[in-house]
Amino acid sequence: MSETESQATASSLQICRIMRPDDANIVGNVHGGTILKMIEEAGCIIGTRHCNTQPGDRCAAQLARVERTDFLYPMFIGEVAHVSAEITYTSNHSVEVQVQVMSENILTGSMKMTNRATLWYVPFSLKDVGKVTEVPPIKYANPEQEEEGKKRYEAQKMERLETKERNGEQLMPVSAPEPYTVGFSQSSLIHLVGPSDCTLHGFVRGGVTMKLMDEVAGIVAARHCKTNIVTASVDAINFHRKIMKGCVVTVSGRATFTSNKSMEIEVFVDADPLIEAEKEKYRAVTAFFTYISLDKENKPLPIPALKLEGEEDQKHFEEGKARYLQNKAKRLADKQRQQ
Amino acid sequence: MSETESQATASSLQICRIMRPDDANIVGNVHGGTILKMIEEAGCIIGTRHCNTQPGDRCAAQLARVERTDFLYPMFIGEVAHVSAEITYTSNHSVEVQVQVMSENILTGSMKMTNRATLWYVPFSLKDVGKVTEVPPIKYANPEQEEEGKKRYEAQKMERLETKERNGEQLMPVSAPEPYTVGFSQSSLIHLVGPSDCTLHGFVRGGVTMKLMDEVAGIVAARHCKTNIVTASVDAINFHRKIMKGCVVTVSGRATFTSNKSMEIEVFVDADPLIEAEKEKYRAVTAFFTYISLDKENKPLPIPALKLEGEEDQKHFEEGKARYLQNKAKRLADKQRQQ
Amino acid sequence: MSETESQATASSLQICRIMRPDDANIVGNVHGGTILKMIEEAGCIIGTRHCNTQPGDRCAAQLARVERTDFLYPMFIGEVAHVSAEITYTSNHSVEVQVQVMSENILTGSMKMTNRATLWYVPFSLKDVGKVTEVPPIKYANPEQEEEGKKRYEAQKMERLETKERNGEQLMPVSAPEPYTVGFSQSSLIHLVGPSDCTLHGFVRGGVTMKLMDEVAGIVAARHCKTNIVTASVDAINFHRKIMKGCVVTVSGRATFTSNKSMEIEVFVDADPLIEAEKEKYRAVTAFFTYISLDKENKPLPIPALKLEGEEDQKHFEEGKARYLQNKAKRLADKQRQQ
Repeated sequence: MSETESQATASSLQICRIMRPDDANIVGNVHGGTILKMIEEAGCIIGTRHCNTQPGDRCAAQLARVERTDFLYPMFIGEVAHVSAEITYTSNHSVEVQVQVMSENILTGSMKMTNRATLWYVPFSLKDVGKVTEVPPIKYANPEQEEEGKKRYEAQKMERLETKERNGEQLMPVSAPEPYTVGFSQSSLIHLVGPSDCTLHGFVRGGVTMKLMDEVAGIVAARHCKTNIVTASVDAINFHRKIMKGCVVTVSGRATFTSNKSMEIEVFVDADPLIEAEKEKYRAVTAFFTYISLDKENKPLPIPALKLEGEEDQKHFEEGKARYLQNKAKRLADKQRQQ
Repeated sequence: MSETESQATASSLQICRIMRPDDANIVGNVHGGTILKMIEEAGCIIGTRHCNTQPGDRCAAQLARVERTDFLYPMFIGEVAHVSAEITYTSNHSVEVQVQVMSENILTGSMKMTNRATLWYVPFSLKDVGKVTEVPPIKYANPEQEEEGKKRYEAQKMERLETKERNGEQLMPVSAPEPYTVGFSQSSLIHLVGPSDCTLHGFVRGGVTMKLMDEVAGIVAARHCKTNIVTASVDAINFHRKIMKGCVVTVSGRATFTSNKSMEIEVFVDADPLIEAEKEKYRAVTAFFTYISLDKENKPLPIPALKLEGEEDQKHFEEGKARYLQNKAKRLADKQRQQ
Repeated sequence: MSETESQATASSLQICRIMRPDDANIVGNVHGGTILKMIEEAGCIIGTRHCNTQPGDRCAAQLARVERTDFLYPMFIGEVAHVSAEITYTSNHSVEVQVQVMSENILTGSMKMTNRATLWYVPFSLKDVGKVTEVPPIKYANPEQEEEGKKRYEAQKMERLETKERNGEQLMPVSAPEPYTVGFSQSSLIHLVGPSDCTLHGFVRGGVTMKLMDEVAGIVAARHCKTNIVTASVDAINFHRKIMKGCVVTVSGRATFTSNKSMEIEVFVDADPLIEAEKEKYRAVTAFFTYISLDKENKPLPIPALKLEGEEDQKHFEEGKARYLQNKAKRLADKQRQQ
């Protein structure tokens, strides 16, 4: 490769990719988040590359700030997104990357600029965690360019300080439940159903639902135990009502019972047909997951006992205990029959 | 292919896949959800294939029930999961599939049975949505086999009916907020940070965080508007604190302001260092996303006005309005400068 | 954008992407399949774009053949893969795309060429399914360039016809496994084709198929060698028949030949149109993958010799040996020509 090419790659970068069904909503509009992710990937590559163009500690560029970004035109499935990134300013410890996104319709040849973004990166040493490294300076075409970059740098620095302070106070009203209570580990997630989650009918695959259920149950278990936890069993699951493409699924989990070596988590799946205003949210699936906690040799650890608060917790615990004893008895019976 | 082989493929199926970093937790244990998803994929394929082996409507097998499933041994990254599925019973309108999962360590050659599962599928017509089609009968090796299958069928049928009734009552206490209020569209998701979300340092990529933020903001906007919504802009985002591999990220969004043609959503990212008990949950990022609502020709639709309840809503709305007017003025100034 | 830039984008293309944990095996070596998929994405974009540069039916470029591809150096997690594609020949109904892959270590700045590939695409109308459209001719720098392209075109055309015939016969025998026999490492996987696996036509992308083929070949090689194995080369691949959305794809692999330092694996792709009862399972693609085994310093290890059982194994081994010797001779000739 000629020297000019090597220099070119050092200060600019092009990424492109075809937009797929999974990148977009059901109408075919590419999610803003898909575009933001590509923008940041380009920024991260060019930033990390630049900060490693001198001897000394190897480092990785960490995103510190994204300036206000407008989405000028919608992008669609089948179009090619072209992301070009360029380093436009460097201070001692930060890099400014400017990114432009074009959408290309490869069938008609039309091209549109959909985004322009500015990102700030800070290089962190790969050896000393937390240590910020020096940024090698770039060359500017003229003094005005450097001067304007410096202004942008000062402006964002001030704004970052301001929001940092504001951020400290403005914590959302979080009720802080006591450790080992049901409320402490209770968790829920929402998931927007995408094309790859669905069968030919446009209904969510059962396996996708179960994966989300296990994910939530796993987070509940990890929050309760703070150890390496693994799924031990899943109770019978009935899929009463189908969930369609374009729905938002809310999956919630709460601890119901703990024995010495296992904990039971009840998981609920609620479906919300987002766009069809007339239809109501409904409960689609519920199930009980049992988790165990493992040490480094994959041997079971004791589980902290669930702290019950109020009658409802007590009722769920008793029901969980009954299921636990029933399953234990069944396992024993199976074992004896096999002998 | 010989006739014996063809028969074999019709009633049994083998899937195998190497377990990857994203299939597992940070310690290397494969998620139960990953295994459940593979089990269901095998069941869905074999069920759909069987139900289409006769003339008439084409159909797709929809999961109706999974029997209690035990995870006998943990599975690890780098192992090969072998999933074999077999049709073991058919009624007029349902198919029983039994699935067995083996984990193979391809470096040592050791194999373990990790799961055994039973799934029930119902075939739905691809033409008439909602129509259940007839299931072609399978041949049994002996009458006992059929008899036992029938018993399992009756048992699960009864249990499904029971839980269906129970499920109707048992709805979680959901406060149902009034449409167009902040509470109505407020949403949050949790995400367990996986290896592919991270940089070389083991910190979450900024682009991954932004994608999750846009996902939540989009759900808030869709819940409020009930139309096709797209990201119009993102305010400056500051990444004050890094998020590590193994954290659980909670991303929450709430509507703050609506103009005629746009709505603003505030998004919060909180990180929870799951396993390290001593560390506390902290706010990592916040940002404002602006969405617009589009009709079928991609033209902007009016946005329903946000109903404010209480002082806090009012305060956020005023602040949002100030940002809105400031950005509008800035856009105008930019336009005039360009002319 | 200036006119020169528009022209540049018309006949060449650059893709780049950071390699992540899920792109690689547990030792950190990027899967050959990941690289093949990126190569094909670049080829598909540039091919589709070129075939739509004239008035008439809009069309999508469908992969018809990949010439033999060597993997010159291993690539690792954290490196950036740069894929550049260029159209190098056009006939009336096909496009030749040459692709080059470089790996960049953004921490050290080192760059290596890891692959060079040649792909052939055929444009299919988006209106009339099955109709092949006309390809607009490219301009050649000189008559020699066109002449050489024509030779490559004739050569691949003949070879495609030959393999099409051969493809009809071959089927896999299934047997019980003694270590180092063909049966011992033989593997297969099935994959249900989802929306994001497909092109605008609803046909499986060539790159998706090749990634699955490499996955199976990799499992066969790992089972045989029980070490860290990496793709060394792929023989010419012909895509005889298209695979549609909703199909189940079965990908099977078996060892055919071992030399001291490499092993050859034959891979078959069979498509099963799950729902359309009238259509039969058919063989869509076959290819030969060559793997090498690496120690911790990424130096080649000896490969255990394949134990042959019966005449068929012997025949495949002899054929594999012939391919091996032919490729070796070709590499030597290329080397001498370059000196």
